[in-house]
Amino acid sequence: MLGPGDDAALVSAPDGRVVVTTDLLLEGRHFRRDWSSAYDIGRKAAAQNLADVSAMGAEPTAIVVGLGLPAATGTAWVDGLADGFREECALVGASVVGGDIARSADGVVIGVTALGDLGGRAPVTRSGARPGDLVAIAGRLGHAAAGLALLLAGREGFPELVEAHRRPRPPYSCGPEAARLGATAMLDVSDGLLQDLGHIAEESGVSIDLDPAALPLPGPLTEAAGALAADPLEWVLTGGDDHALAATFPQDTPLPPHWLVVGRVGEGSEVTVGGRPAGPGGWDHFRE
Amino acid sequence: MLGPGDDAALVSAPDGRVVVTTDLLLEGRHFRRDWSSAYDIGRKAAAQNLADVSAMGAEPTAIVVGLGLPAATGTAWVDGLADGFREECALVGASVVGGDIARSADGVVIGVTALGDLGGRAPVTRSGARPGDLVAIAGRLGHAAAGLALLLAGREGFPELVEAHRRPRPPYSCGPEAARLGATAMLDVSDGLLQDLGHIAEESGVSIDLDPAALPLPGPLTEAAGALAADPLEWVLTGGDDHALAATFPQDTPLPPHWLVVGRVGEGSEVTVGGRPAGPGGWDHFRE
Repeated sequence: MLGPGDDAALVSAPDGRVVVTTDLLLEGRHFRRDWSSAYDIGRKAAAQNLADVSAMGAEPTAIVVGLGLPAATGTAWVDGLADGFREECALVGASVVGGDIARSADGVVIGVTALGDLGGRAPVTRSGARPGDLVAIAGRLGHAAAGLALLLAGREGFPELVEAHRRPRPPYSCGPEAARLGATAMLDVSDGLLQDLGHIAEESGVSIDLDPAALPLPGPLTEAAGALAADPLEWVLTGGDDHALAATFPQDTPLPPHWLVVGRVGEGSEVTVGGRPAGPGGWDHFRE
Repeated sequence: MLGPGDDAALVSAPDGRVVVTTDLLLEGRHFRRDWSSAYDIGRKAAAQNLADVSAMGAEPTAIVVGLGLPAATGTAWVDGLADGFREECALVGASVVGGDIARSADGVVIGVTALGDLGGRAPVTRSGARPGDLVAIAGRLGHAAAGLALLLAGREGFPELVEAHRRPRPPYSCGPEAARLGATAMLDVSDGLLQDLGHIAEESGVSIDLDPAALPLPGPLTEAAGALAADPLEWVLTGGDDHALAATFPQDTPLPPHWLVVGRVGEGSEVTVGGRPAGPGGWDHFRE
């Protein structure tokens, strides 16, 4: 409604409530300029915030961006970053409505805040899962982790996985869809499926058991794991950065096919895989 | 409505529109940990964003904070910062509803995004000033600049001015008040009165002439200027960081006493002081 150029922007919030989330990305820690283009960094920084909005069941409406740039940063790099922000937002009909630029002494700093509108729906939090609910995921798991492992190992090939690390593709529309379908809890998988489902288990006071046979292991993932002597299921269970959505639904919910049922909510407090508990060692506990 | 702990927070936006603004503060550039306590840095970081919301004519409702912290940052420092955020927000009835913490390699990074509600009012932008309008300010000018000059010079004394540098006190309630009074343009003075009024002149296509005799020069400011052989009017005209509000009003507007008339809008495009133009050299042009 009012974009950059004033003290503040004005964004439509027809619901009468607004969803808001923020992330800070630091060069070297969250991205590397030698591994990702400015454009991809912009896409990724926007994506991880837009995915958080989607994970509440809301439609993203706008982002604002705070940038810290070292003196030597070229305008082409900044333009690429801005293009990335804009194009990722365009995927969901959102806009970049404001920002702030400062000179940083050392390394690029990117702060993104995303807003969203619930369209009258109740927000889907982490605390509503109930024993008997289905656990389902939408989007990719383990791809970004595999891509990062390939980059770290200096391995060529598997462009789809490296691309997944550089530029996540969150299933944005699946968040509001899940809310309409009656999801009881939802989050976006940013730290790994096991760890993030642990948040739902804790906040909802339930246990979650995943069916290892139901977890998707597409070809590129198993092939890359073979090339690196890695375990693809470990990437799927513990890899972050794909920004899949994980949600729980009442057991009779008719789920569309892009929501893949991978487990079940029960009484208790643990996250297990095929009934085996996930201890402090994480994934290692399931492996033989 | 929903605070920290989920993918995103939920904030009431009864107006159906939401005001949003963001700022990035970098250690060494925007604050120094040896000059300001964590608490004061938190107060200041919140204040400058809440003031931007107020300058649109809106009531601040919430902030979210992204923090980059070096490994050695103590919890007491972080607690002090959080207290500062919370207490500055409490001044306006707003809350800290979410955040993100990352490990930074070098220096504290603070990204603050503030939201606000217009309560049905039109936003007051920078583009509505018309020839004949009054120019008025609310809040302090030059105090923070004087405090910074005292710190840079290592001068003792004048605690009120040093305090003004460490912790601005924006006149929050005056922003929505100005909107109700029919302000035609408004902004918060963050870069200096001349420079910021230049934004109104440019966006509105008008000139602005300030009356030097009307500009407030309180005792501590003239005394500190005497001690440093500085010009207090220069601090008032070019000093930022006090986050006063500057607004234009139709000339017959009955202004309450905390809105001080300091100038007049005219035809043209320049900002002048007592009829003398402000060129690229800024304040130097007015001095003799």
